[in-house]
Amino acid sequence: MSTSPSADDATAECTAEQLRALELIKTSKRFLLTGHVRPDGDCVGAQAALSSCLDRMGCDVTILNPDPIEPRFEYLAQHATFHAWEGGEIPPHDVVVLLDFNEISRCGRLGEALARADSKKLVIDHHISMGEPWWDEAFVDVRASATGLLVHRIHEAIGLDIELAAAMGIFTSIISDTGWFKYSNTDAETLRIASEMVELGVEPARMFQAVEQRKKPNHPTLTGGILAATKYFADGRAAVVSLKWSEATVGYESDDVLDCVRSVAGVEVVLFVRELADKTCKLSARSKEWYDVQRLTRRFGGGGHARAAGASFECSLTQACADLIAAVEEDLAQEHGGSE
Amino acid sequence: MSTSPSADDATAECTAEQLRALELIKTSKRFLLTGHVRPDGDCVGAQAALSSCLDRMGCDVTILNPDPIEPRFEYLAQHATFHAWEGGEIPPHDVVVLLDFNEISRCGRLGEALARADSKKLVIDHHISMGEPWWDEAFVDVRASATGLLVHRIHEAIGLDIELAAAMGIFTSIISDTGWFKYSNTDAETLRIASEMVELGVEPARMFQAVEQRKKPNHPTLTGGILAATKYFADGRAAVVSLKWSEATVGYESDDVLDCVRSVAGVEVVLFVRELADKTCKLSARSKEWYDVQRLTRRFGGGGHARAAGASFECSLTQACADLIAAVEEDLAQEHGGSE
Repeated sequence: MSTSPSADDATAECTAEQLRALELIKTSKRFLLTGHVRPDGDCVGAQAALSSCLDRMGCDVTILNPDPIEPRFEYLAQHATFHAWEGGEIPPHDVVVLLDFNEISRCGRLGEALARADSKKLVIDHHISMGEPWWDEAFVDVRASATGLLVHRIHEAIGLDIELAAAMGIFTSIISDTGWFKYSNTDAETLRIASEMVELGVEPARMFQAVEQRKKPNHPTLTGGILAATKYFADGRAAVVSLKWSEATVGYESDDVLDCVRSVAGVEVVLFVRELADKTCKLSARSKEWYDVQRLTRRFGGGGHARAAGASFECSLTQACADLIAAVEEDLAQEHGGSE
Repeated sequence: MSTSPSADDATAECTAEQLRALELIKTSKRFLLTGHVRPDGDCVGAQAALSSCLDRMGCDVTILNPDPIEPRFEYLAQHATFHAWEGGEIPPHDVVVLLDFNEISRCGRLGEALARADSKKLVIDHHISMGEPWWDEAFVDVRASATGLLVHRIHEAIGLDIELAAAMGIFTSIISDTGWFKYSNTDAETLRIASEMVELGVEPARMFQAVEQRKKPNHPTLTGGILAATKYFADGRAAVVSLKWSEATVGYESDDVLDCVRSVAGVEVVLFVRELADKTCKLSARSKEWYDVQRLTRRFGGGGHARAAGASFECSLTQACADLIAAVEEDLAQEHGGSE
């Protein structure tokens, strides 16, 4: 079905596994695209892009996630409908596509229903798989900075031009998973595809405004209060900031605080601990170069990536901070001799 | 002197004025590269890149700025020497190159000495020129997102490969002037050239760490104090933040404050006014979508770009803030009817 020399080039770069996944896409009719709980920008961006691709191929497409799309990504919903599953019947379909994850349990109860459905399971993802392959087909590349890039490669291999709706999705994927081109996964392909998406009509500044510049008026003052009480420990290699719950803190976005503290020279780990309405606490941990925050959070029942992870605490803010400081101090004393 | 088909392509895209500038570069021997006072990342990045280009052409190159290079750009100094003029003789040279500016007065006293020198004056810049052309030659494109992109085009038009030192400079230029690919000047060319620079060995995450993650330990607490006192006006469409001088504020970097306040929905203009050691004040103004901060700052003797500009004030912090608030309120009431 290759329709152009560039499609031939693109398929030539595919693995045998990826070619089988492409064959499944080309020969199926009814698709159900799904994502993990609280789908992030890479997940919903890749869904928007794949939905556009399948639409153009004349397929039936339904996007069905365990949770609604975040309001800041609502521009993606202009060209695709993002359904949030609330129980009940799963629409009839031939292929379920998992985008940006590979464990069906990460869909929550929707995952159980999808697992039972009599359909092929296709994974499109860039995460390392922890268990045995359980899916029918997979289009996976763990070196890709974002799942959206894989959907771009699928467009190319099928020989389809990318429509603006797909370009918006792919750009959303890229900026979400590369921290807006700042993380170490930002490679030449990432920037090249981002450039192509701009050529197709994506406006980075408008997208930045939609995604990052829709905060509440109390955001700067809340951020100010948190930052003013920044506490360093472990010889300035770690810092903790915290936020007590109040009505005003609902929906507070912590990125600015984490970025600001992490911008200090010599700070390797930043912990942001916030109290929730039910008096439990939630940790967001970030590291800069080498400290493994995933390992840290696993000790407290959480998880994530090596440089960004989280956990929940059933204790007071003060206690959670004290426990975390003790754990990180111990790690830093051991791992780098405490003398760097 | 074109040496390749791509060089022919690149020269074909040049204006007649740019071709004359290229001719001057190709036929001269001793170059003195200069920048504006407090040279920013675009300025020093473009200097590093042009220095690499001229080195490879066998020319003599001296970089001489009115101020030293900022420590956060010191990685550029591994391959080029950035001299800060402290008065005295100007090294003998055939061509002075002004990078990232076009008014020689912006070099301060160095500009007077350069203006007197018996040399050709070449401007490489992407700013709009306010006065009559006074230079001998100019390689100017006001649509280019960064001066570094123009130096990239010069490499291409001359038919030279780009060395890693030049790639680091060009990438530095781009990230500095596009706010790390977020501002509206981030076009397809910007991202495409950034991709090429990564292909040549630039590591975005390492550069981010070098440029943005070397702040002082008091940065979060200072930022917190400033943000906690954020003051909105003009129906929440503008905000002002300020910083009184103290020893602790020396070298304070204002980006986090400006970005945080600008991230609030509906805020179009952000003013950051800081007191300096000599009790004068300095404004950094940013806008989001349409308000022209260059026009605002010109009224106070400053300048810059439409979305990012600055000015100096010979009055108290309180007075400077009051004058600015009045000016912006008047503009917003007029330009958008005060009712948006």
